[in-house]
Amino acid sequence: MPTATDPLSQTFAALADPTRRAILARLTEGAATVKELSEPFAMSGPAVSKHLRVLERAGLITRGRKAQWRPCELEATPLREVTEWAEHYRRFWDESYERLDEYLQHLQTKEEHDDSKHHR
Amino acid sequence: MPTATDPLSQTFAALADPTRRAILARLTEGAATVKELSEPFAMSGPAVSKHLRVLERAGLITRGRKAQWRPCELEATPLREVTEWAEHYRRFWDESYERLDEYLQHLQTKEEHDDSKHHR
Repeated sequence: MPTATDPLSQTFAALADPTRRAILARLTEGAATVKELSEPFAMSGPAVSKHLRVLERAGLITRGRKAQWRPCELEATPLREVTEWAEHYRRFWDESYERLDEYLQHLQTKEEHDDSKHHR
Repeated sequence: MPTATDPLSQTFAALADPTRRAILARLTEGAATVKELSEPFAMSGPAVSKHLRVLERAGLITRGRKAQWRPCELEATPLREVTEWAEHYRRFWDESYERLDEYLQHLQTKEEHDDSKHHR
């Protein structure tokens, strides 16, 4: 299937990788250069740069214009779109939790009932 | 880069496609068969089935066990994980909005100031 290029699809595709999510987490502490990002991930500069390009295309980071350093900065606005999209489904995950809750209560009531029978 | 297989990456990869997100949106109205899902999307059954397999692997839908119909149902729990993950970045997108707000206020003050000069 071809890669979708609408903004939200690009954001989701960029987030579908644990290293890229770890890079974003690192950038919450402040801007960082490619070198600073390569070290904790034990990755080569070019491998990190590849991930950064995906993040940059998705608008999740911006890069400084100083040719040599080009520090990366987090750009969280697309993540706001992600939350807004997912929020439409909140009542559905709440429902699954309610069902689980009801089931657990049912088990507990049953247990109490069984207990009282055993103590008779 | 290889496809990551951790649950959150699988969820994000499954969401990185507008048709798959439209299928999830359709399923908020209730369970649907492959046939019912193919019609609004003007897609062949096999093309829809391919998308459904991606959604099923990511745990975003479950499929009934009746061999012939196998209706699909929304399973929203992974979307809860998505929101929880994105929430860690809320203060960063709030910050960008604050900066925009400050800038707009600055423009307005400037405008008022310019106006009062013109009216002198």
